[in-house]
Amino acid sequence: MKEIQGGITAPEGFYAASHAAGIKYKGREDMALIYSDTDCITAGTFTTNVVKAAPVLWDSDIVHSDAKVRAVVINSGIANAATGKPGMDICEKTAQAMSSLYGGNRDSVLVASTGVIGMQIDADKICAGCKELFEKKADTPGAATAAAKAIMTTDTHKKEIAVEVELTDGKVIRIGAMTKGSGMIHPNMCTMLGFVTTDAVIDKKLLQKAISAIVDDTFNMITVDGDTSTNDTYVILANGRAGNTLIGDEGEDYRRFYEGLLHVSEYLAIQMAGDGEGATKLFECHVKEAQNVADAKKMAKSVVGSALCKAAIFGNDSNFGRFLCALGYSGADFDPAKVDIWYEAAGKKLKIVENGMDAGYSEDEATELLKSEAVTVVAVMHAGSAEARAWGCDLSYDYVKINADYRS
Amino acid sequence: MKEIQGGITAPEGFYAASHAAGIKYKGREDMALIYSDTDCITAGTFTTNVVKAAPVLWDSDIVHSDAKVRAVVINSGIANAATGKPGMDICEKTAQAMSSLYGGNRDSVLVASTGVIGMQIDADKICAGCKELFEKKADTPGAATAAAKAIMTTDTHKKEIAVEVELTDGKVIRIGAMTKGSGMIHPNMCTMLGFVTTDAVIDKKLLQKAISAIVDDTFNMITVDGDTSTNDTYVILANGRAGNTLIGDEGEDYRRFYEGLLHVSEYLAIQMAGDGEGATKLFECHVKEAQNVADAKKMAKSVVGSALCKAAIFGNDSNFGRFLCALGYSGADFDPAKVDIWYEAAGKKLKIVENGMDAGYSEDEATELLKSEAVTVVAVMHAGSAEARAWGCDLSYDYVKINADYRS
Repeated sequence: MKEIQGGITAPEGFYAASHAAGIKYKGREDMALIYSDTDCITAGTFTTNVVKAAPVLWDSDIVHSDAKVRAVVINSGIANAATGKPGMDICEKTAQAMSSLYGGNRDSVLVASTGVIGMQIDADKICAGCKELFEKKADTPGAATAAAKAIMTTDTHKKEIAVEVELTDGKVIRIGAMTKGSGMIHPNMCTMLGFVTTDAVIDKKLLQKAISAIVDDTFNMITVDGDTSTNDTYVILANGRAGNTLIGDEGEDYRRFYEGLLHVSEYLAIQMAGDGEGATKLFECHVKEAQNVADAKKMAKSVVGSALCKAAIFGNDSNFGRFLCALGYSGADFDPAKVDIWYEAAGKKLKIVENGMDAGYSEDEATELLKSEAVTVVAVMHAGSAEARAWGCDLSYDYVKINADYRS
Repeated sequence: MKEIQGGITAPEGFYAASHAAGIKYKGREDMALIYSDTDCITAGTFTTNVVKAAPVLWDSDIVHSDAKVRAVVINSGIANAATGKPGMDICEKTAQAMSSLYGGNRDSVLVASTGVIGMQIDADKICAGCKELFEKKADTPGAATAAAKAIMTTDTHKKEIAVEVELTDGKVIRIGAMTKGSGMIHPNMCTMLGFVTTDAVIDKKLLQKAISAIVDDTFNMITVDGDTSTNDTYVILANGRAGNTLIGDEGEDYRRFYEGLLHVSEYLAIQMAGDGEGATKLFECHVKEAQNVADAKKMAKSVVGSALCKAAIFGNDSNFGRFLCALGYSGADFDPAKVDIWYEAAGKKLKIVENGMDAGYSEDEATELLKSEAVTVVAVMHAGSAEARAWGCDLSYDYVKINADYRS
């Protein structure tokens, strides 16, 4: 496996486009298209929130059916959530407008929206946007990057990646992906939109199995603010253009494909965590030697999700009691007297807690480590061999500023 | 029932004292004593955090035994959590120092600590403080208020209340209480210390039943930052000095006592929520017409605990999608298309959401209501007859400021 250029257009037969449709934002592009010249099978995971945005309802119907997909139309600015029947109509009109351009069915179009909840999207603007996108589509790295930028809301930078993987038959398959996500981010899934393209030939059930497992270990292990959004979506489109032997069982080729998909997903998840609203640094928790993986995940997520831990990380304040406290209310059981805690940052390690108590470390050294742009809190439970990692960011003044008046 | 003066010294035979022991804070009182001239039965609830502070372990042993209690010694500044065996020794030395002053057993003394986790308390300072406290104790409102101030950490004001209740035998019993709590506040229990005194004659099992049920509806329904502390404690001491007929069953006298204890507990819980770190206003969620109480509680807590809802309340921004979103990820099931949402503030009501969508309200009116010092979001689920209320506060710049460098 190696990283390559081109984002979502890196796999054969995939095109991207972006456009300024003026849906809500002024002076920037706010619509994106992913297009495949060949039918795609799909798989994906969606928000567990009871309040699901219209595009989530539209897409999950298609992804969980046998329908073949050709296009994904995405807009930023308005989430099309809490929009009732008119919101569903927008999905249908968008799909109609796009599919008519290449002569396909409405259920060959996925739609995705992100932004303010409760506002309706102007149908005329989004349908006119579809036409522009289709005309502008290109299979170039520049088009992919422009699309990754057009789907951003409060994100401070675009998030895209691509890899290529050689299979056992000597064929090379490619996986490209882009995500957006900055606030309203919390497991199940984090508030995010993510789109993956691949030219691999793979069985649909295996594709779903891979993406579900990978989301659990990546996007479901990041948190920015504990709010699970109405719009979370992570979908993969596979058009089979690489012409490899079908990946039809969980053998070596599946393992290689899985590794590639895990790599792009973990990269993007960590990018989102580190770009959390107002974040000044990436905050990782790595729980080791836990009695089981479920407990390790609970504990890691509890630490990176704690407002008090996040505020301490922002302040470069080694208030280690807060890490112990967050481990303690995670719902996992453990012996507090056995816990060691380390900081890992900038290639250095420092033991902070030993056997559940102050390890007698240097505050100056701790403060220096905490000033790094990525800080890992390692909790060693001495209870077994399971481990888990979770990612978040610090809690800064700017988080409050961004969210106190997001709509204006 | 009526409110009276005197806080924890309002019931017969109870004394209070405060003292500047210099445990961590400079230039302020940081120790408090509650003392009864007669043996007390006790009941209480404690943190569910796996990492329990030493005083929690000490107190829960005593409260869950038949030991009679005479005194509670409290310090602020250091939490005596994550302190191992030396931390337990501090509890024992404190109890020894205090009980020797009135010739009692060590298990007649409860201890409580709040402040930074992971630091050890100086035994000499706290034992010397016990002597000062015992000498200064008084059964006056001024002594009670001074004690309520001495237990504060980041609280901006003291929290105390007292009521008297007439029983069916014509005897009047009194209930006094004080709490501290401002950050690290979240259900099960909120991060808080709370102490209740009463001169009622009541069965110990009934006392425990009452306090457990009341904590579920009051302190477990507030949240400031989602962090469940290592030190949460809410205990009641009953010395029987009112001489009433024993409250020995769940009849009318129990009902009256319960109502009194509920009143003081709810008052203090709301005081704590409104005094959350950096709070500029009290933020209540009242869920109505839910299918059951458990779901109603989940939804109400989810809304007041949401960082995005809290930030919107701080910014007076009627971003109603965030309320719907937080209801949706609460874990309760409901039909989003049936939900109405209202704001209630300053004696006015405004419907924001109707049938899960924008109700077509005036943004100016909404902004005016949100500027009130107490804002209630009422969610009407149209699914049944259950209801619940939860309390929190907004998320402000000052929350981050307070918690980014709390220890210095």
